[in-house]
Parts: sequence; structure tokens; C-alpha cells
Amino acid sequence: MNTVIPHATHDTQTATPHAAAQSGIQEWHRIVADSDWEKLSDLLADDVVFRNPSTFEPYQGKGPMQAILPAVFSVLEDFKYLRHFGSAAGYVLEFSASIGDEQVMGVDLVEFNDDGKIIDFMVMMRPASVVLTLSAEVGKRIAAAQASAK
Amino acid sequence: MNTVIPHATHDTQTATPHAAAQSGIQEWHRIVADSDWEKLSDLLADDVVFRNPSTFEPYQGKGPMQAILPAVFSVLEDFKYLRHFGSAAGYVLEFSASIGDEQVMGVDLVEFNDDGKIIDFMVMMRPASVVLTLSAEVGKRIAAAQASAK
Repeated sequence: MNTVIPHATHDTQTATPHAAAQSGIQEWHRIVADSDWEKLSDLLADDVVFRNPSTFEPYQGKGPMQAILPAVFSVLEDFKYLRHFGSAAGYVLEFSASIGDEQVMGVDLVEFNDDGKIIDFMVMMRPASVVLTLSAEVGKRIAAAQASAK
Repeated sequence: MNTVIPHATHDTQTATPHAAAQSGIQEWHRIVADSDWEKLSDLLADDVVFRNPSTFEPYQGKGPMQAILPAVFSVLEDFKYLRHFGSAAGYVLEFSASIGDEQVMGVDLVEFNDDGKIIDFMVMMRPASVVLTLSAEVGKRIAAAQASAK
């Protein structure tokens, strides 16, 4: 049974991101390029929502992103941003990377508030099997980092 | 070892899709809403590339999309398009859906040529575990359809 929900209209005219979102995405690219994760907190709204590729339930607040993203970027190799897509308040950043012998492609869906802070950050990747490999490795590194911080 | 490849510049000014892409995405939404899969062929370039969520290697040509997409939409329930993002030649369409008791979120990255035909169609979904469930079910339905067509 096909249960597609019909829509009256779809915007075919997409908007371009507002000025604060443009500044925010520049700072995001700088943090990634420089691995400057200590500055990530300043780019996040206090109630930021983080949606990772491996579990459906989102994370709330800055803490999970600050723990997870550095670990993810330490596992991914040859990380490279490709196409960019925009909406009024956000971007989709397409990327490619590898994990060992496996190649992945993914997207970051990043939404900003009027202050240029990230309020919603969703990551999806393909192929799904490699996402599970990545997720397991990231979990190990976060556990190791927390153990060594004690 | 972090191997982020540095970039000189990133476009923070995203473009809006060209007129033929706007017409094309309207026809895509119509096909999905009406389940009018027989008309999908007219919207695809002969050398269209289809990148699915479960395997890295892309499919070439119209055949795979014409077999796989109707099967995917027959498995997904409560399918709904959400945010739209644009670039000069394409769109990212975010969607939500469910499979049995499981919820999924996903994106279609759709790129058009100057004739308004789709030349590249990439799908990603989260969570990864449900993508594998979906992929197995879609495989069964395609095999059943091919068996009954003999």
C-alpha cells in the first residue's frame, strides 16, 4: 500500500541562506579545516539538536556534538566537501570520505538561527553498512577519550 | 590522523535552480504523489546515475531507477517531503517516512540537465539499520515483480 501524502504545493524557488547563516557556515568550514573543535561551542545554540546517521533519536544540547564530531572526523579519512545546496536558514553540504578501504558519501543538513548559531545538525551517509562500522569505531574512541579524561 | 583536505574557498552564496530544473522537480513531485511511475522514464536522462543508500557503487541508466523506485515507495509508509534546498542545477529534498514501527528520515539529491531531465539521483537515509531492512524488503519485491513478469 502506497501511502504518499499529497501536497498542495512545493516550493520550486528555493531561497538563499541569510547573512548570519552565511557567516556561520564559513566558521563551520574553518573549524573543520583547522580541526579547531574547541571553538565549536561558540557556533552552537544552547538547545542545538544533533541527528546522527546511525540512530533515529536526536541528541539535545551542545555536549553530544562536542564529543561526537571530533571523534567522527578522527575516523574519517580524505574528508572533502563537494556540492552545496541552500535554503533560507540553512545549507546541505555534500561530502566524500573514506574509512579504511571503504568509501562513503554523506550530507550535513545545517540550520542556523538569526544569530548565526547552529540550531539543527543532521548527518546522513551511504552506504548504510559502512555507517555502522563508523558508528562502532566512533563509540570506541569516545569511550577511550572519556576513560583517559578521568 | 585527521586528513581533512583544506579548501581555499567555499560558496556561501548558493544559487537557485534553473528554470528547467524547477519544471523537472515539479514533475518529480507529481509522479511521486500520483505513483505515476510509467512517466518516470520521460524525466530521466538516458545516462542517469542512481546512487542508493545501501551500496556505494552507482547504477547507470534508466532501468535500475525504474525498477527500484516504485518498489521503495511501495515499502515506505507515510512518506512526506519536508525541507527543500537548492543549487544552480539541483535540489535536496528532505523526507520522513516509516517502515513498520520504524521511522526514517532521508534526502534525495537530484540534479538536472538543461533539458530538465534528471542526470544524477542520490538517496541517503537514517538510521542506517533501517536502511538495511528497507533494502532487503525492496530486493524481495523486485525479485517477486520480475518473477511474475516472466
